[in-house]
Amino acid sequence: MRVGCQASWTPEIDRSAETIAADLGALADRPTVRAALAALGLPGSRDLIATPAAVLDIDAFDRNVAKMQARATAAGVRLRPHAKSHKCAALAHRQIAAGAVGVCCAKLAEAEALAAAGIGSILVTSPVFGSSQAARAAALAAALPDFAIVVDHVDGVAELAATGQAITVLIDVDVGLGRTGVGSPEQAAALVRAILAAPTITLRGLQAYGGHWQHVEGANARAAAVADGMVRLAGVTAAVRQAGVAVGLVTGGGTGTASADISQGVLGELQCGSYAFMDKEYRDALGADPDGAFEHALVVQSRVITDNHRRWVTLDAGIKALSTDGPPPVPATPGLEGCAYRVFGDEHGMLMRPADRALARGDRVDLIPGHIDPTLDRYDMIHAVRGEVLVDIFRIDARGASQ
Amino acid sequence: MRVGCQASWTPEIDRSAETIAADLGALADRPTVRAALAALGLPGSRDLIATPAAVLDIDAFDRNVAKMQARATAAGVRLRPHAKSHKCAALAHRQIAAGAVGVCCAKLAEAEALAAAGIGSILVTSPVFGSSQAARAAALAAALPDFAIVVDHVDGVAELAATGQAITVLIDVDVGLGRTGVGSPEQAAALVRAILAAPTITLRGLQAYGGHWQHVEGANARAAAVADGMVRLAGVTAAVRQAGVAVGLVTGGGTGTASADISQGVLGELQCGSYAFMDKEYRDALGADPDGAFEHALVVQSRVITDNHRRWVTLDAGIKALSTDGPPPVPATPGLEGCAYRVFGDEHGMLMRPADRALARGDRVDLIPGHIDPTLDRYDMIHAVRGEVLVDIFRIDARGASQ
Repeated sequence: MRVGCQASWTPEIDRSAETIAADLGALADRPTVRAALAALGLPGSRDLIATPAAVLDIDAFDRNVAKMQARATAAGVRLRPHAKSHKCAALAHRQIAAGAVGVCCAKLAEAEALAAAGIGSILVTSPVFGSSQAARAAALAAALPDFAIVVDHVDGVAELAATGQAITVLIDVDVGLGRTGVGSPEQAAALVRAILAAPTITLRGLQAYGGHWQHVEGANARAAAVADGMVRLAGVTAAVRQAGVAVGLVTGGGTGTASADISQGVLGELQCGSYAFMDKEYRDALGADPDGAFEHALVVQSRVITDNHRRWVTLDAGIKALSTDGPPPVPATPGLEGCAYRVFGDEHGMLMRPADRALARGDRVDLIPGHIDPTLDRYDMIHAVRGEVLVDIFRIDARGASQ
Repeated sequence: MRVGCQASWTPEIDRSAETIAADLGALADRPTVRAALAALGLPGSRDLIATPAAVLDIDAFDRNVAKMQARATAAGVRLRPHAKSHKCAALAHRQIAAGAVGVCCAKLAEAEALAAAGIGSILVTSPVFGSSQAARAAALAAALPDFAIVVDHVDGVAELAATGQAITVLIDVDVGLGRTGVGSPEQAAALVRAILAAPTITLRGLQAYGGHWQHVEGANARAAAVADGMVRLAGVTAAVRQAGVAVGLVTGGGTGTASADISQGVLGELQCGSYAFMDKEYRDALGADPDGAFEHALVVQSRVITDNHRRWVTLDAGIKALSTDGPPPVPATPGLEGCAYRVFGDEHGMLMRPADRALARGDRVDLIPGHIDPTLDRYDMIHAVRGEVLVDIFRIDARGASQ
């Protein structure tokens, strides 16, 4: 519908400012959030978001989500996106509405935060230690329609069993990363025996995640690395079968290996997370291959606060606004794509001036993050936009919940 | 007092669990926080803090605060610690109680959060842009007993003046870092004229912060770098005087240059922040010189969650628990001091096994962060301990408030 005057313009918002404020809780008292909510849905409201901010093109997010879901569905595998990328219940609900079976969480506290916000199906993908963590896992298992957690040590099984709660587990298999997981078929067999001996513990299957594969450059090299890990997995699978149980589901994979994982045909459930946003690191690794066909849906919106220097300008986004573990962020703003960003302390960034475009105090600069997960963990909220209109604000429910 | 039995043991807590829970707000609903509060003040309660966690030796913090305050007082300069290091009102109140004149904040949102928590004297050390930021500065100026903000552009002065609110400013001087601040005496003179022309804007003095000096290794090299910047400052000072006003206060400095700043005698107010906690980066730079005589008061408490590998163990603290922009963290736990830590993804760390000490699943490992400010910004709370007793939990009021 073409509109002829401003009065008949309808903002494309999904939730009212009042609903969003109630959801944000104490965050809604911040002057920056009050100002953003007052502008919700208005033309140009994106420009009123206080910077630095995590700004999400919600339609691009939805397209990424639909694309990965379509791939998984076509291959006959389940998609359980990793929520450690966003830690946000509103986005997890969107992924589940699009067909995901639930989400993965990295830690119990992340799962607790998303469970409290209504997510009903969660797999915790890191093993935990001790009676207090086992009690928290048991509480989640009792409260959620579907909860599971990985184990990689017989003592871990004993701790979960000691809670008396019925708990579903998967055996975490080290496929070459060396981070978590059983390292040998013998260890896996011992774990199976411990699980069989515990009447309240149910084995759902195996987890095989190769974090070290995700950023291997080139589709062929990545596929070869995955195939090598699959040999390790096959050894554990055989040991589990010899211990007298069916292997059941095998879960794993990430954005960088989704195509390879699907073509290997080993995984029954994919754990990709970053695909929904994309970042510089994945773009560098994926290039033009099929896994790379996702859009950069999220930017850190920043602003030039000082233009006193001849060769560069200073942005209001530094270490506290952008992750520094991956490649540096790159500008998405038209005309600035080639300008190099450098961290300029905790609170600021340096952007080299382009040769052919003026850049002045107050100019907005959108940055594609180097690494999406730790970038989003720096924010309390995700600002959803359609073009230049702010349409929603999502709470990052599990921010800081790494316990 | 020696106590003979457990019943007469008095926990050294400053605030009750109920008071702390009220202060923490929604955070107190997290299962991890409920468990910690239930153990508050009990022997061994530190071991019950869910990891990874920011754990502060509160007595060491108080000693660091007293030491820097004594140095400043002896030199006849004011101490206005930078709150960007901790973003925590409870710790800011402690620094003010020990003699600080107030705190610095890096951004308006940080100032808003600390002002809401009762901090009455704040200097914002970064320039801001635009009418909405100027309005927020004006609101702080109206609400606080003492508020000031730096400017480095005539348009910034005009924006503040347009609010109609009485606002105190300092001219930010670029002393060689090139980040923010006026870059020449001419620019400074133009700024003075703009301030004099605005009846509601009062000039308090200059800010001269050399972030690039802080990590110059060796006290002599640092002192030389500071002296070079002071030449730039002298040029601006002369220009300000020629424009017809007294320079007033000069504020600046950091933990790495406190001794040099004091001996130069130029600064009337010190902005050090990290000294209260210390980190690996400052220890490397300061070595055994007088600025280095602060204690490591803060550690990231972590735990071994997997010991399946022969050469290393996996900790539950990774990129989301520790900053990656500085040097890697180092273990503070006795017997592990020489063990190398490596980031092992967003959620985990790799700690090389020591030759002479067993390290097993569940073992606690305390890590001295590489860079304190962005490490604390990853947490919602600081757990205060005395030895093995959890005595308080402080909210990180301005976490994520980088706007």
